[in-house]
Amino acid sequence: MIVNCVAYEKGHRLRDIQTHEIENYLGQPDRFVWVALHNPDDKEMAAFQEVFGLHELAVEDALKGDQRPKLEEYGEALFMIMHMITLRDEQLEAGQVAVFAGPGYVLSVRLHPGQGFAMVRRRCEREPKLLRHGPAFVLYALMDAIVDRYFPVVEALQAELESIEDQIFVRGTARRSLERLYQLKRQTMQLKHAAMPLGEAAAHLFGGRVPALCRKTQEYFRDVYDHLHRIEAAVDTIREMAITAIQVNLSMVAIDEGEVHKRLAAWAAIFAVATILAGIWGMNFAHMPELDWRLGYPLALLVMGVACGWLYWRFRRAGWL
Amino acid sequence: MIVNCVAYEKGHRLRDIQTHEIENYLGQPDRFVWVALHNPDDKEMAAFQEVFGLHELAVEDALKGDQRPKLEEYGEALFMIMHMITLRDEQLEAGQVAVFAGPGYVLSVRLHPGQGFAMVRRRCEREPKLLRHGPAFVLYALMDAIVDRYFPVVEALQAELESIEDQIFVRGTARRSLERLYQLKRQTMQLKHAAMPLGEAAAHLFGGRVPALCRKTQEYFRDVYDHLHRIEAAVDTIREMAITAIQVNLSMVAIDEGEVHKRLAAWAAIFAVATILAGIWGMNFAHMPELDWRLGYPLALLVMGVACGWLYWRFRRAGWL
Amino acid sequence: MIVNCVAYEKGHRLRDIQTHEIENYLGQPDRFVWVALHNPDDKEMAAFQEVFGLHELAVEDALKGDQRPKLEEYGEALFMIMHMITLRDEQLEAGQVAVFAGPGYVLSVRLHPGQGFAMVRRRCEREPKLLRHGPAFVLYALMDAIVDRYFPVVEALQAELESIEDQIFVRGTARRSLERLYQLKRQTMQLKHAAMPLGEAAAHLFGGRVPALCRKTQEYFRDVYDHLHRIEAAVDTIREMAITAIQVNLSMVAIDEGEVHKRLAAWAAIFAVATILAGIWGMNFAHMPELDWRLGYPLALLVMGVACGWLYWRFRRAGWL
Amino acid sequence: MIVNCVAYEKGHRLRDIQTHEIENYLGQPDRFVWVALHNPDDKEMAAFQEVFGLHELAVEDALKGDQRPKLEEYGEALFMIMHMITLRDEQLEAGQVAVFAGPGYVLSVRLHPGQGFAMVRRRCEREPKLLRHGPAFVLYALMDAIVDRYFPVVEALQAELESIEDQIFVRGTARRSLERLYQLKRQTMQLKHAAMPLGEAAAHLFGGRVPALCRKTQEYFRDVYDHLHRIEAAVDTIREMAITAIQVNLSMVAIDEGEVHKRLAAWAAIFAVATILAGIWGMNFAHMPELDWRLGYPLALLVMGVACGWLYWRFRRAGWL
Amino acid sequence: MIVNCVAYEKGHRLRDIQTHEIENYLGQPDRFVWVALHNPDDKEMAAFQEVFGLHELAVEDALKGDQRPKLEEYGEALFMIMHMITLRDEQLEAGQVAVFAGPGYVLSVRLHPGQGFAMVRRRCEREPKLLRHGPAFVLYALMDAIVDRYFPVVEALQAELESIEDQIFVRGTARRSLERLYQLKRQTMQLKHAAMPLGEAAAHLFGGRVPALCRKTQEYFRDVYDHLHRIEAAVDTIREMAITAIQVNLSMVAIDEGEVHKRLAAWAAIFAVATILAGIWGMNFAHMPELDWRLGYPLALLVMGVACGWLYWRFRRAGWL
Repeated sequence: MIVNCVAYEKGHRLRDIQTHEIENYLGQPDRFVWVALHNPDDKEMAAFQEVFGLHELAVEDALKGDQRPKLEEYGEALFMIMHMITLRDEQLEAGQVAVFAGPGYVLSVRLHPGQGFAMVRRRCEREPKLLRHGPAFVLYALMDAIVDRYFPVVEALQAELESIEDQIFVRGTARRSLERLYQLKRQTMQLKHAAMPLGEAAAHLFGGRVPALCRKTQEYFRDVYDHLHRIEAAVDTIREMAITAIQVNLSMVAIDEGEVHKRLAAWAAIFAVATILAGIWGMNFAHMPELDWRLGYPLALLVMGVACGWLYWRFRRAGWL
Repeated sequence: MIVNCVAYEKGHRLRDIQTHEIENYLGQPDRFVWVALHNPDDKEMAAFQEVFGLHELAVEDALKGDQRPKLEEYGEALFMIMHMITLRDEQLEAGQVAVFAGPGYVLSVRLHPGQGFAMVRRRCEREPKLLRHGPAFVLYALMDAIVDRYFPVVEALQAELESIEDQIFVRGTARRSLERLYQLKRQTMQLKHAAMPLGEAAAHLFGGRVPALCRKTQEYFRDVYDHLHRIEAAVDTIREMAITAIQVNLSMVAIDEGEVHKRLAAWAAIFAVATILAGIWGMNFAHMPELDWRLGYPLALLVMGVACGWLYWRFRRAGWL
Repeated sequence: MIVNCVAYEKGHRLRDIQTHEIENYLGQPDRFVWVALHNPDDKEMAAFQEVFGLHELAVEDALKGDQRPKLEEYGEALFMIMHMITLRDEQLEAGQVAVFAGPGYVLSVRLHPGQGFAMVRRRCEREPKLLRHGPAFVLYALMDAIVDRYFPVVEALQAELESIEDQIFVRGTARRSLERLYQLKRQTMQLKHAAMPLGEAAAHLFGGRVPALCRKTQEYFRDVYDHLHRIEAAVDTIREMAITAIQVNLSMVAIDEGEVHKRLAAWAAIFAVATILAGIWGMNFAHMPELDWRLGYPLALLVMGVACGWLYWRFRRAGWL
Repeated sequence: MIVNCVAYEKGHRLRDIQTHEIENYLGQPDRFVWVALHNPDDKEMAAFQEVFGLHELAVEDALKGDQRPKLEEYGEALFMIMHMITLRDEQLEAGQVAVFAGPGYVLSVRLHPGQGFAMVRRRCEREPKLLRHGPAFVLYALMDAIVDRYFPVVEALQAELESIEDQIFVRGTARRSLERLYQLKRQTMQLKHAAMPLGEAAAHLFGGRVPALCRKTQEYFRDVYDHLHRIEAAVDTIREMAITAIQVNLSMVAIDEGEVHKRLAAWAAIFAVATILAGIWGMNFAHMPELDWRLGYPLALLVMGVACGWLYWRFRRAGWL
Repeated sequence: MIVNCVAYEKGHRLRDIQTHEIENYLGQPDRFVWVALHNPDDKEMAAFQEVFGLHELAVEDALKGDQRPKLEEYGEALFMIMHMITLRDEQLEAGQVAVFAGPGYVLSVRLHPGQGFAMVRRRCEREPKLLRHGPAFVLYALMDAIVDRYFPVVEALQAELESIEDQIFVRGTARRSLERLYQLKRQTMQLKHAAMPLGEAAAHLFGGRVPALCRKTQEYFRDVYDHLHRIEAAVDTIREMAITAIQVNLSMVAIDEGEVHKRLAAWAAIFAVATILAGIWGMNFAHMPELDWRLGYPLALLVMGVACGWLYWRFRRAGWL
């Protein structure tokens, strides 16, 4: 589906155009066409492939989905794959955005449902001074929008980690914490696999040998690169702390286990003493004088009670109960 | 065994030729010979070694099997070793494919049983426009076919991991999960050792200093490289999650153990109380008035039942039972 | 808030100036202006952005906070982000300092409360010979001051580790040690994320391709780099020992557990022997001669006592009690 | 001890020569001297040091043993240290071989007992065409021989790992497996420390900036490099699987432990029920009608038997027994 | 304190000189001054700073101690920090040595007590041929002496590891082994932090871009580098094996625990059977014929003995006892 197809001149919107008109706007200085597609079919895509001269392999990647983030140069043109990550019902969902940027055109291909880039276009159109930089600026704007959407995801993961940390030293939550930590680790890796290769891609767009198209917008790509670096650092921290938390969780289970054991042992000892005493007075010896005492029975119960009470008090003091 | 020996001109199939005719087709512009061998013996190989001028060490590697994936340059010619990985009965099987590609010829040597490359040849012959690029394109087509066969293997490993993950938080499956995780880790490493060095090899065929033979097919090799990168990323995720799952498994065992312990402790306490009460009324004191009551016995049973029931109810509430 | 705005000539303080006078001091050899801001609002910042020609993206970073440490070049000017780490109530607090340094000016922007840089300015003014190096020397002085403040934090973390180490082989402290180790690991990572990127930044200011501004102060930046390297090494040691300590902690828990078990087992055996003996003499056989002995009962108690005592002595010798 | 001292011309063996004749064969095109020493004393070594002009530090390394594998250039000459690893009685033994190769000479110095290189010399002499490449080819042949002897060691370690893997999921073998895994890990590291630095050394003998001596034998050194790479990959796999196996071993111990616990708990419950019933009928209440029944006793035994049997059956069904 | 201050010419000792005479020996070809200081005060140091023109930051580092090992170039001069590690009472002690080497002078500054370098000076003076290389050779000789002192430390750590390994599979030593492993790991890291940065420093003194001062002594620095590499490899092995040993230790604790459990369970079962039998014959049924048998009591004891014996024999056979 063609979402938008607009021509721009010197950073200002000229007008919405039809696919067949695109040719008229190509190859003219200060002009470029910005097309946005959403889940295009092969035929729609073929039209743009021809008019913009896109490479067959890149087109295939853009349509197929499930690519890893990357930046490829085809002559003067750039081809970038990015992942949009959104958090829905505690699950991370990934969508793919492919951007073709060449002299005079930008073509974005968005797969899967998810938020579009109408906002990005509007913001760009409000700043013609910047949009004048042409296709490279649009590429930056799209990248920046996608990367900005990673931050709430990172923050959600950080919040999840903190919530688990609050639980981890509390008894009886080990199983639940473990499931959440495993899940967290998995999501962290998913986010990392979206951000890290994109960071590598961004690193090619400023500094050393920069493609001609992006030479004037280097500072913007450095800014995106920097954002990705922050995300990576945050993700690494979450990942490392999650690993530590899993280890700590195991230790906590063992410590709790030990405490249960001590408690159990203490009660077993108390019961055992009572059992032995009852056993002794249940023996059938002919000559057991205390059996004939009038107060023998209550005394026996008292002795048992005192013995158990004394043990209880000792174990309490030792912290076993 | 010689599977095929065909001459091509400008990307079109000329005809099947005999080994001794090969010389006539070498050194002619726009022509090349594509030979496919399967488990060749030393003599067959020697013939091709001579006509194509292959290096002794490379020929040895191609025949011996058990090499690691690699790319070697011998003058203008390229020599590549690849691993074919197939999943049979939950086990990974590895076959070796060696490809010699030089000006005017491609020679593929496949060892061990397994799927051949007839499909690859047919697909190439359907696109003479691409096959015109000559031996480099054939090398790409073979590489692409082999790498494409890695994907179902990766998917099978991912499915196995997911199936283990579903089990891991279920009680009583720890032993089986552990065996499967160990097996999974081992297979992951096998796949990694096939994909990673091949990725390094592919990286030499585009970008910087590219062998003359492959200069016009760089974009295709970049595509293969990209596929290998995706496989590596997937394999790394599986590997890291498998390690985490092994740790989680241990924690789950400990947690389950703790629960069994609590259950055990609770029942032991209940039984102990009943035992003590029976012991007390089994004592032989002369003066134990309740022993002479008419309802003494049923009352005693009632007291024991109530005591046990009360403990049961408390342990239940505490989650120990 | 503007903390200071001072003009310098040949390393000597000229006088405090107003914002609107700054222009008069720019572009003059041997002169520079050093401005210090604290939590500036957008308007204050905009004034300096104009007079010094600061890049929009850098200004945004300086005001927003929460950036990662970095060094960026904008033409001849440098832009650096640093983290101030302070230890308050056993928690690490991070503040951000941004420094813009260009020909003729230095502008530092400090966010969040925390110690200012009045000391740094005073020390610089006492050494006009060094301050003559201009903005680069001020940048160094600020960096050096911030990095110097990392050392007490590192030392506090080391002291914490040592204090935990003293506890770790003591029984019954596992839970508390674990909480402290987890906390320590977290703080270590926070400090690392402040120091490591700053080290990378410092590495660009001496040695190879150094920005023109800093060419004469390379040795000073190498010194800062060296300090950061020491901090990193210390942090890595703490981190690795903390991981080991967590593992050791788990082993200690298991060892303690085993000792409790042995103790429990020994007492259980002693009690069991007494119970069996009492049970035997409680049997109702008609012909049990010892039951009729006059000293049967005390002898039975003696036998029970001796049996238990002997077991106690054996377990003691075996180290179980 | 001088094992051999032979002069070669154009790849053909001329004749065995004495130490003092060596000079006559140096500096002549197409000729070289190949000397093999075994545990030489200082005096023997001094003679060769002078005639070949060997560097004092290299000579010291060759005689002292216990060096790490390395390649050093001294002017036009090369000096290489290699480790020979042999498996004797399940232990790895390491011997050191030092090779000096310069224009016109090769000198190998073998320390410690172990297999010599007579085979290598014979094989070289059978192929004068290759031996013509001179000292560099001899260096290659020695390297190749040593590296080839690593493979049986790797295979033995792999076999050991597989044998442990077969044991690891079997009950009651944890202690033995652990000892073997620890031993395996240690041997793996020993082999790695022999192979890895040698691989680095080999990497300097082909490809980029190659010493003049080896320029014509690059493909051979690449082959050795490739073998070393395979060994490293195999060693890494063993190492990583050994680490995993140690973790799995711990989990298996915990799982087995848990099963023992359940079994124990089940039997304890069965015994406890019998004990309680016996205790109840051992109470001394005056009015316990069943005590006076004629079949009371056999009925009581039946009840106890049925209760225990029912519990046994339930535990069996639950998999605890 | 000034330990020595000697002038050399062409590698030969001229004579001991006073600080104020140094100037006379500077700037003369083939001559240099070698000064050794031990815990100098600021004033002593200031004198040398002036006469040799040392950089203020380097002087500060040399006096302050607690620096990390490093090599810095100040114009033509070199400044190196090294750590001396000695083993005293099973603890590693670190001292700092700073060396300033420039054209015509070497100045070593040793902090903290510990062995001096008189031996080094004597050995150098015995070999004027080598000492002719001037300050660079002295720097090498000092480095070599310090690095040589690392070897006994490495060997002590290896011996400690081996001694722990002998203990680790022995029962009942887990706690002590753990403390020693933790201590070993800590010392390993300390040694590594001394050796690794020094290795990096040494790597700058041979091979690529070497400071002019050291150009003729590259082979010597390569030798030191090589020693440091060996130390690093040994340290890495110790470190990795220590980590493995900690894991193995945990497994051993768990295995031992399991064996204690089985033993405990077996005895519990034996006791339980005896208790039940005694309980049965202690029941008060009117009609229990065996109670009235003359041999009832000894038979009952026999039955109990046989039952317990049979269980004992079965547990023994199963390896539980």
